Amino acid sequence: MHVTSRGHRAPGPGAESWARCGLAASFTRRSPGAPAAAARSQRWPSCVASWRRSWKESAGLALGRASESSRPVKDRASTWTASPEVTAPPGSRRTWPGGEGPFRGLRWSGGPAGSGRTCTLGHWLLSRPSGRLWLPGVNSNLVKPVSSEGGILNFCANNYLGLSSHPEVIQAGLQALEEFGAGLSSVRFICGTQSIHKDLEAKIAQFHQREDAILYPSCFDANAGLFEALLTPEDAVLSDELNHASIIDGIRLCKAHKYRYRHLDMANLEAKLQEAQKHRLRLVATDGAFSMDGDIAPLQEICRLASRYGALVFVDECHATGFLGATGRGTDELLGVMDQVTIINSTLGKALGGASGGYTTGPGPLVSLLRQRARPYLFSNSLPPAVIGCASKALDLLMESNAIVQSMAAKTQRFRSKMEAAGFAISGAHHPICPVMLGDARLASCMADDMLKRGIFVIGFSYPVVPKGKARIRVQISAVHSEEDIDRCVEAFVEVGRLHGALP
Amino acid sequence: MHVTSRGHRAPGPGAESWARCGLAASFTRRSPGAPAAAARSQRWPSCVASWRRSWKESAGLALGRASESSRPVKDRASTWTASPEVTAPPGSRRTWPGGEGPFRGLRWSGGPAGSGRTCTLGHWLLSRPSGRLWLPGVNSNLVKPVSSEGGILNFCANNYLGLSSHPEVIQAGLQALEEFGAGLSSVRFICGTQSIHKDLEAKIAQFHQREDAILYPSCFDANAGLFEALLTPEDAVLSDELNHASIIDGIRLCKAHKYRYRHLDMANLEAKLQEAQKHRLRLVATDGAFSMDGDIAPLQEICRLASRYGALVFVDECHATGFLGATGRGTDELLGVMDQVTIINSTLGKALGGASGGYTTGPGPLVSLLRQRARPYLFSNSLPPAVIGCASKALDLLMESNAIVQSMAAKTQRFRSKMEAAGFAISGAHHPICPVMLGDARLASCMADDMLKRGIFVIGFSYPVVPKGKARIRVQISAVHSEEDIDRCVEAFVEVGRLHGALP
Repeated sequence: MHVTSRGHRAPGPGAESWARCGLAASFTRRSPGAPAAAARSQRWPSCVASWRRSWKESAGLALGRASESSRPVKDRASTWTASPEVTAPPGSRRTWPGGEGPFRGLRWSGGPAGSGRTCTLGHWLLSRPSGRLWLPGVNSNLVKPVSSEGGILNFCANNYLGLSSHPEVIQAGLQALEEFGAGLSSVRFICGTQSIHKDLEAKIAQFHQREDAILYPSCFDANAGLFEALLTPEDAVLSDELNHASIIDGIRLCKAHKYRYRHLDMANLEAKLQEAQKHRLRLVATDGAFSMDGDIAPLQEICRLASRYGALVFVDECHATGFLGATGRGTDELLGVMDQVTIINSTLGKALGGASGGYTTGPGPLVSLLRQRARPYLFSNSLPPAVIGCASKALDLLMESNAIVQSMAAKTQRFRSKMEAAGFAISGAHHPICPVMLGDARLASCMADDMLKRGIFVIGFSYPVVPKGKARIRVQISAVHSEEDIDRCVEAFVEVGRLHGALP
Repeated sequence: MHVTSRGHRAPGPGAESWARCGLAASFTRRSPGAPAAAARSQRWPSCVASWRRSWKESAGLALGRASESSRPVKDRASTWTASPEVTAPPGSRRTWPGGEGPFRGLRWSGGPAGSGRTCTLGHWLLSRPSGRLWLPGVNSNLVKPVSSEGGILNFCANNYLGLSSHPEVIQAGLQALEEFGAGLSSVRFICGTQSIHKDLEAKIAQFHQREDAILYPSCFDANAGLFEALLTPEDAVLSDELNHASIIDGIRLCKAHKYRYRHLDMANLEAKLQEAQKHRLRLVATDGAFSMDGDIAPLQEICRLASRYGALVFVDECHATGFLGATGRGTDELLGVMDQVTIINSTLGKALGGASGGYTTGPGPLVSLLRQRARPYLFSNSLPPAVIGCASKALDLLMESNAIVQSMAAKTQRFRSKMEAAGFAISGAHHPICPVMLGDARLASCMADDMLKRGIFVIGFSYPVVPKGKARIRVQISAVHSEEDIDRCVEAFVEVGRLHGALP
């Protein structure tokens, strides 16, 4: 394979090495003697029968624990839908019987007569490039797409800036895939680091105005890797009770002393900080923007307390990076504390192209430490070139101009003000997560159903995902929605709200 | 955006939605008033000074713990390289002072005179499409590529079948990226599931001859999600002491009783199974092929014991899927126990295209359970279309023909037999992981250095990554190596081995 000093390949990806290794690139086509692709059903051993019984008991137990528990909502999200097995009567059309879970707003229907196992729901979306959308089944029932007349607008993705369909982002991904291959087949520290990985880490650090950055397969992994690498049993971590599940899991994996303070409650945080003075190092951990309510951590106050009590501040910026603050740097820019937040974890999988990947950015020595000790970094493949290419271009676009951030903010404002003028209560402030508060779980579910009939894809959330009596439809605005899309969404809400008595 | 009923877009990705949302796709170019990309260095708050001190203490402590500990090697891999900060004297060339870590075999050199901070090591690889390879720095020092005369052959990637550079795999990734976009910006259960995700899950289940499959961002995540979702405090998990770090982390996150049996020691496993009879459910967890030694779990014996003591068998097939067994299904096919292994986790990031992503495949109810309760599945982005496209094509190629699997096996055999004929001891049997056993850490390191000078990129591994006195150079064979590449590697080993006295 010829590679120029600039790293460009010529001509086709891998064609030459495939030619020279003794296997033609087209070797795979129906060569004689190749076994037919096996698809036979498998008989499971007898112990599986008892295991299946155990599973049913275990699922039941988990559900029981969830109902009795007083743990915070997000911590038990893993029991959302642990319902008994369900089979849809053939041809029936009904809402999912799990009732209160995240699928509450979605309908499913029986498949071909007699199958009793196939759900159907057809979508195609105007606001993203995916031609078809699948909604996951319930208890492994399949969901099959059906063709749909008329477009359905997606108002429930984290595609805040719409960059997952931006032509330049796609083009950058195509180029990286062609130039650097499908993947590295290696962890970073053996042979899984290319120039594009180092370039993107430098770009992320520059974007956040931090010293260095380190990539992970996901921000879930970045959160899983941070706390154990940084904190010892002599240290303490103080965590907002509604932090994301991945922060909770990261904290579970570390041996530091754990304190949980009430959601956004600064008096409670201060009390916990006083209690934690006996430990060597204190780390306050919070989401920058919380995904269920669109509310924002009071970082100024948190940083003030951290400074007073000698603590470090860690912020998960997944629902902020790229669009909060004057230039989209995140919650720390919005609240003017960029020089006081020590560690930021965030994602490439939401505003920054929407593919996958997460990162930590902060002091150089911290990043060095993570490269040596963060387990999901050490033991997972490096990010594929296509993902790196897309994310890198997304950051370029944001660093070159504010136009898209301002456009999203204006559209968010348009949605929020029109909805409030119509009589709806929208939680949070200024965030593109716009929870339309309805209170009643059944109301949220039925309204989401009817919104879908009008071509607006939104999801109703109710207990246990959110507290009892706080059911809502979570609307997420994207820069790629047009003003007409926003208006169409508001009109549908008004129509459906009147139909169900949510509006007078 | 126009979408046909088959899901094809016309014409460019997202171009139309970008045009209609009020933002031209080219809006980002130097719009007036856009702030310059900020790259100013940041002053860190005073508490960071003490934190840096704490970190140094903590790193020291961790290193101390590692030396004193008797925990199994892999479990403390996170302390491999927790060394004090190092600055290279300008222009110097020396081995990394961490000594025993995974970077042992790599040299680094000082950068431009006076910088004292830049390592240089140039690579370009014949066996993969990456034009340039970066090797990670030590303690955040940068590593910069330099142009290299002559190709360097990569013998340390997990790119077993070479599919990361296969033209059809790349082409399938390009097509998925164009058709389905950069990413979904959503978890699977909200709006992150496309037809290609369901198709790939079905294909994986078909490939492994299992009932169903579920995708994760990585196999690290698949292992992190499985045990907690499946096992309760009434259950027990029995784990080989040399299992991969991600299995260990998954087990740490679950509340089941934990038993660790000695590596491949069936008598010890049986004793632990007897001890574990008091628990409701028993799960034996093992790697199919172990990555450090290329040795293979005795699955027939494990399954026999599991059957006798009413246990389930879980196998991590990351270093087996795609190439072990007559048709590359994995260790369970190789050992004839496909109908006795209940749960398989594996990766798309090694033989199956090398990008990223992992999965669990097994009984339908298990997959249903994981969709409801596995936290890295519930709370992480769905896999990006480009990754899905590449992996799906890789599976197609493997299901259509055995040629590539047979080619890799023949090349592995060629390497192993030529090396053994030359007088080297190669650990394991028949596996493309071919550890050249050298015993002495310094010898492994120096030989790896000299191999690189001869254009062969291999890594020396020594304590604590492998047991003391078991230092080796781990060679990994790929189908995309030509027979000449294999011979060139063997010749270099013979030359370097004689030079260092490893061969007579």
